[in-house]
Amino acid sequence: MKTLNLDLGENSYPIYIGQALLDQAQLLTDHIHGKQVMIVTNTTVAPLYLQQVKSLLNSLNVAEVVLPDGEQYKTLDTVNLIFDALLENRFDRSCTLIALGGGVVGDMTGFAAASYQRGVDFIQIPTTLLSQVDSSVGGKTGVNHPLGKNMIGSFHQPNCVVIDVDTLDTLDDRQFSAGLAEVIKYGLLGNVSFLEFLQNNIESLISREKSLIIQAVYQSCTDKADIVAEDELESGKRALLNFGHTFGHAIENTLGYGVFLHGEAISVGMLMATKLSQMSGDLSEGEVSQVKDLLEKSNLPVSVAGKISASEFLSAMSVDKKVVDGNIRLILMRKLGESYISDTYEQAQLEQVIGDFCQP
Amino acid sequence: MKTLNLDLGENSYPIYIGQALLDQAQLLTDHIHGKQVMIVTNTTVAPLYLQQVKSLLNSLNVAEVVLPDGEQYKTLDTVNLIFDALLENRFDRSCTLIALGGGVVGDMTGFAAASYQRGVDFIQIPTTLLSQVDSSVGGKTGVNHPLGKNMIGSFHQPNCVVIDVDTLDTLDDRQFSAGLAEVIKYGLLGNVSFLEFLQNNIESLISREKSLIIQAVYQSCTDKADIVAEDELESGKRALLNFGHTFGHAIENTLGYGVFLHGEAISVGMLMATKLSQMSGDLSEGEVSQVKDLLEKSNLPVSVAGKISASEFLSAMSVDKKVVDGNIRLILMRKLGESYISDTYEQAQLEQVIGDFCQP
Repeated sequence: MKTLNLDLGENSYPIYIGQALLDQAQLLTDHIHGKQVMIVTNTTVAPLYLQQVKSLLNSLNVAEVVLPDGEQYKTLDTVNLIFDALLENRFDRSCTLIALGGGVVGDMTGFAAASYQRGVDFIQIPTTLLSQVDSSVGGKTGVNHPLGKNMIGSFHQPNCVVIDVDTLDTLDDRQFSAGLAEVIKYGLLGNVSFLEFLQNNIESLISREKSLIIQAVYQSCTDKADIVAEDELESGKRALLNFGHTFGHAIENTLGYGVFLHGEAISVGMLMATKLSQMSGDLSEGEVSQVKDLLEKSNLPVSVAGKISASEFLSAMSVDKKVVDGNIRLILMRKLGESYISDTYEQAQLEQVIGDFCQP
Repeated sequence: MKTLNLDLGENSYPIYIGQALLDQAQLLTDHIHGKQVMIVTNTTVAPLYLQQVKSLLNSLNVAEVVLPDGEQYKTLDTVNLIFDALLENRFDRSCTLIALGGGVVGDMTGFAAASYQRGVDFIQIPTTLLSQVDSSVGGKTGVNHPLGKNMIGSFHQPNCVVIDVDTLDTLDDRQFSAGLAEVIKYGLLGNVSFLEFLQNNIESLISREKSLIIQAVYQSCTDKADIVAEDELESGKRALLNFGHTFGHAIENTLGYGVFLHGEAISVGMLMATKLSQMSGDLSEGEVSQVKDLLEKSNLPVSVAGKISASEFLSAMSVDKKVVDGNIRLILMRKLGESYISDTYEQAQLEQVIGDFCQP
């Protein structure tokens, strides 16, 4: 087992990464301070891992809430089901919430923990590749609003994160590829040697070679942890983690949830950011092709042609969180594997990229 | 104008207290960093003060949302109306919310500000005596759940609080008295000289002598600020601010919102805590009578006889936030004007107090 310690002062916490971690009770119980534990999971994950996690917590007062599965349920109404369960069980401020599932479960459980009685403890057990490398690290919590993704939420750090890569055995190929999109993101945004590792090993990763998965998850979490530790509340460098996301969120908002998985939308978004970087003069066409090749070998989409019109795309981008007083800030690359926050690109080039990716 | 500076490190903020403050634009504009301002108010306050506040913010992009008035609307669904308005106006992370109204508006606006895009700025303009001395100070935000009051929320400090006591001119007598309950609370929980000031001046306060109101609001805010500055996240001393509140919340939860005003429930709750303190041997019967006399002169209720049964009352108390692993902690007085957190009182005496206050 590898342990990453995320250094956030009094909000610091460890991330455990390895195999068979859901057999080790102490990883959880060391971080539970009261007697009341609410496991939050969904209808897909509950049959797979709920009993296993419950069996680790025999000596505690454990309750569970099983939410419907899917991004379309990442709403205030669904979070309210968690509040209902907590209050029906008369859980008090000393309780701990455990998020058992993917990013949607993690984001909603974290927001419920942040907001229940003005803040209680929580632990993340991410069971998808995407949530293992992204949404379980960094304390972002929240839900969607009909007018925008992740518009409602807060920052709330978990007590610990337990990443058991064996839970990926039950993840389907499409979800696995969507997770790889976020892994590739870390290479693109700031770690060229990791990018090369991924380019060299993409076939083995796609065939689920576990030692490589552990390495990729560990490196992704390390990179994210380094950035988050520098910038807990996302005022500066942390924005780099949104590489591909302003485009990606526009895709998700326009298509509606469920058409593209989050990682699939981010895949297209990252290639769009790469293309805009090339048009801005910072990358070669060969480097754009390298990125496209890696995404395609990961079985990820690289276009929204025929799905979204350019005007829909532009309109959707203007309500994104990265907007400050009307200017759309984007994360671009100044060279392969090195990104920066830009609001000085040419608007015409942005529109051309959007046009290229949207036109059949 | 008096200014109190609440010292909370990087979350520090000033509280301005005086007359005609809603004529001074700078008190607001000095604390607004972006261009987008959402004024959140309700159907009662909007006709009275909304245009006045808007007129101070001419150079900014100002929108408003007018919520229904009443504690029964202090829900997640109502907070969602604020999110709707923010997103419909395409407000981004640089926006500022202004809470214009009583405690309900303040609590919901603060929670919306804490949760919109993971946290935006907000300013409080409390227009009731209760909110001026209580809910606008200290950063508590939140909403009710059908199973308990203030069960959902977070800590989020405003940029500033503007208390214009002239807004009390439009407050009805019952609301004014309810606010006095919280003023009296500060005397009882830790300031015997303030308690004596109130006893000596209660008739003038009830007749709305403005210089005395300013003095009472200023002292209440000072006392609360001192406690909050010591204990921002309510782990210790801040619990004393809940004097009378465990009883009071049980009353509100049992009767349903709207039967008793919050301050009225707290009035009964404070007298119950006073009575339990006397039964525990720490106060004289004469001191209990003094407290009762002050509450009665403030036109506040001192009993729930005939309204709630003793068994309903006890049941309602056990879901309160002050419960830790099953023990009901209460704030009691060790002498008049000096309170402490107790879980060592006799359960039988608690039940007797509840019985006495509930029986006709």
